[in-house]
Amino acid sequence: MRRTVSIFGSTGSIGRNTVDLLCRQGGAEVYDVKVLTGAGNVTLLAHQAIELKADVAVTAEASRLVDLEAALAGTGVCATAGVDAVVDAANISVDWGMSAIVGSAGLAPTLELAKQARILALANKESLVCAGELVQATCTESGCILIPVDSEHCAIFQALAGGSNSDISRIILTASGGPFNDWTKSQMADATLEQAMAHPNWDMGQRISIDSATMFNKALEVIEAKQLFGVRSDQIEVIIHPQSIIHSMIEYNDYSIIAQLAAPDMRGAIGFALNWPDRPALPVDKLDFGAIAHLNFATPDEDQFPALRLARRVLKIGGLAGAVFNAAKESALDRFISGDISFLDMARLVESVLEDLHIKAGQGSSLDGLSAVMAIDLEAKERGFKWVPA
Amino acid sequence: MRRTVSIFGSTGSIGRNTVDLLCRQGGAEVYDVKVLTGAGNVTLLAHQAIELKADVAVTAEASRLVDLEAALAGTGVCATAGVDAVVDAANISVDWGMSAIVGSAGLAPTLELAKQARILALANKESLVCAGELVQATCTESGCILIPVDSEHCAIFQALAGGSNSDISRIILTASGGPFNDWTKSQMADATLEQAMAHPNWDMGQRISIDSATMFNKALEVIEAKQLFGVRSDQIEVIIHPQSIIHSMIEYNDYSIIAQLAAPDMRGAIGFALNWPDRPALPVDKLDFGAIAHLNFATPDEDQFPALRLARRVLKIGGLAGAVFNAAKESALDRFISGDISFLDMARLVESVLEDLHIKAGQGSSLDGLSAVMAIDLEAKERGFKWVPA
Repeated sequence: MRRTVSIFGSTGSIGRNTVDLLCRQGGAEVYDVKVLTGAGNVTLLAHQAIELKADVAVTAEASRLVDLEAALAGTGVCATAGVDAVVDAANISVDWGMSAIVGSAGLAPTLELAKQARILALANKESLVCAGELVQATCTESGCILIPVDSEHCAIFQALAGGSNSDISRIILTASGGPFNDWTKSQMADATLEQAMAHPNWDMGQRISIDSATMFNKALEVIEAKQLFGVRSDQIEVIIHPQSIIHSMIEYNDYSIIAQLAAPDMRGAIGFALNWPDRPALPVDKLDFGAIAHLNFATPDEDQFPALRLARRVLKIGGLAGAVFNAAKESALDRFISGDISFLDMARLVESVLEDLHIKAGQGSSLDGLSAVMAIDLEAKERGFKWVPA
Repeated sequence: MRRTVSIFGSTGSIGRNTVDLLCRQGGAEVYDVKVLTGAGNVTLLAHQAIELKADVAVTAEASRLVDLEAALAGTGVCATAGVDAVVDAANISVDWGMSAIVGSAGLAPTLELAKQARILALANKESLVCAGELVQATCTESGCILIPVDSEHCAIFQALAGGSNSDISRIILTASGGPFNDWTKSQMADATLEQAMAHPNWDMGQRISIDSATMFNKALEVIEAKQLFGVRSDQIEVIIHPQSIIHSMIEYNDYSIIAQLAAPDMRGAIGFALNWPDRPALPVDKLDFGAIAHLNFATPDEDQFPALRLARRVLKIGGLAGAVFNAAKESALDRFISGDISFLDMARLVESVLEDLHIKAGQGSSLDGLSAVMAIDLEAKERGFKWVPA
């Protein structure tokens, strides 16, 4: 019997790598692909759906339905469109579901997948940042196994195999430091979009590359780690490791540290989640320590990267502070990409919105439901778009 | 009910650290200490036995019985002496037994412990090098759980928790490179005993410190890894890592690597074996990656360190080649310590004896029994002592 799979966000960086691995591991002969979803790139979406003989292809952009239908005409793949259609498509039972939509838009389909999938491969970190308690409670209720596909958290998941969460004394998240690791703060004030997108190690999408340059991505990962592994916030440490070879580490109470290392290639984490608990060969590079020669580490500068300080603030506020933080960050990112605010303004905007909403956020909980999360997400985004630089 | 424990080799470096941990974790109130054994240092042995309220203290040196009896007079601790008394003392059932006698002298008590202990903490690597199949078969028959206390193999044991031996593609043993890592071979030709004993990271006994300088210790560990984890010899790689922070790594078939890191302090591995599967706090330093800053790696130079090449030769010959290799190495070490041969002569002697006996070694097996192992051990030592430098 073929394993049933769905991929939400199949045309993005994680999604394309997931499709690549499915094809390498036998494609439609091995996997019964139920759903692929994408946004505006319907040409690629249709191509993937035809190659994997998917039942349904969904574009989140309702206006692109005509184009998707045309591209799929005569192929037997059903086309649907719209944000609601994406969520509906997640309401189809599968053995394995990949949640790889970027941003808080991934939350609703992730929650549906958590109800319907036997294994949820979670690349959409915002689900955990905005609604970690709700995602975990949904998985617990349905019996869904959550495997994180963020490279850091996948590393911790692997390092923790056979160990117990209660024995953890520290989670050490590694951070490349991004393209501005060696820059001064005054140099960063004039950073351009192009410079912010030039990540030294990882080939990723535009938004996550900029989030790496601000270290907002790492801040999200701190919150994600707290939600995934149930540690206290003072047990999560970030360390700069420019080579991105050690993907993260856990320290046990006896001060023994278990680390996971691999070449910086997301197909490692995606393939781990796809094949878990087996470990067949993957098309990733083997590490050669003679050639690597050095692994470097440094304590991050929180004046240069205020996002890390803000992550701790979010964990202290609790409740829906993660949703506020992520939404404010998304609006800041939109405004930086459009040239409306400067690189350093992004953190200023986020801090301002977080402080505006911290009391309200602290009183809420994702367990109140998706609508509560989306309401504060919207409010934070509106405040973010209205924020005025000093 | 107190846990019953015995320590074989309690006055050496590993043994003293084991006693230290037992005392810190509650001593005689928590542990019911059955047996402590030592060699010539009967003063320390008696002191340990009194502190831990052991039933029996055994000195391997028959001539020291009078001194041991005097030191234990009126304490209620029974004193015995002689090599056979050490083996007899291993024939007492315990929950946890530490085998930390140095050299092939540890083999016979290790085999008895493997029959009598529920958990065997194995620091005597020579047991595995000389008679790995026999040790493993004995543990399998008795149901004894073997936990390696060599820091590298303990690292692999920890890294492999939750994984499967059949998914291993590579074992990467780290080696500090010892005190001569940056020396040229011609400098090493004149190395003195004092220089060879000056290990940069680990505070160990004289013999193992010199074995680290020649990398014979690492060669033994390659053979030990093969015996412990059942991989092919071409799956074991040695990498120079001068800081001794990463204690070893395993690579799975998907090229994901799991590493164990800790401060270079044997109490980490001893405490892991003592408390397994729990992980209470241990009196070892916590790693600070900001302070560590760099971890370095290099491919070892097998011309400078021929021991690594000889280890592969041993694995190729199989049978009792490990016993020959270890015995020749022990005789070479004795002759270097006594000033009889030079530092580089040690590897020449071992290679010569190994080639003399390789056919005989290849035809034997440790499964033929302890006497077969000890016979070829004796023959290799005799040849080692007779070997004449070129």
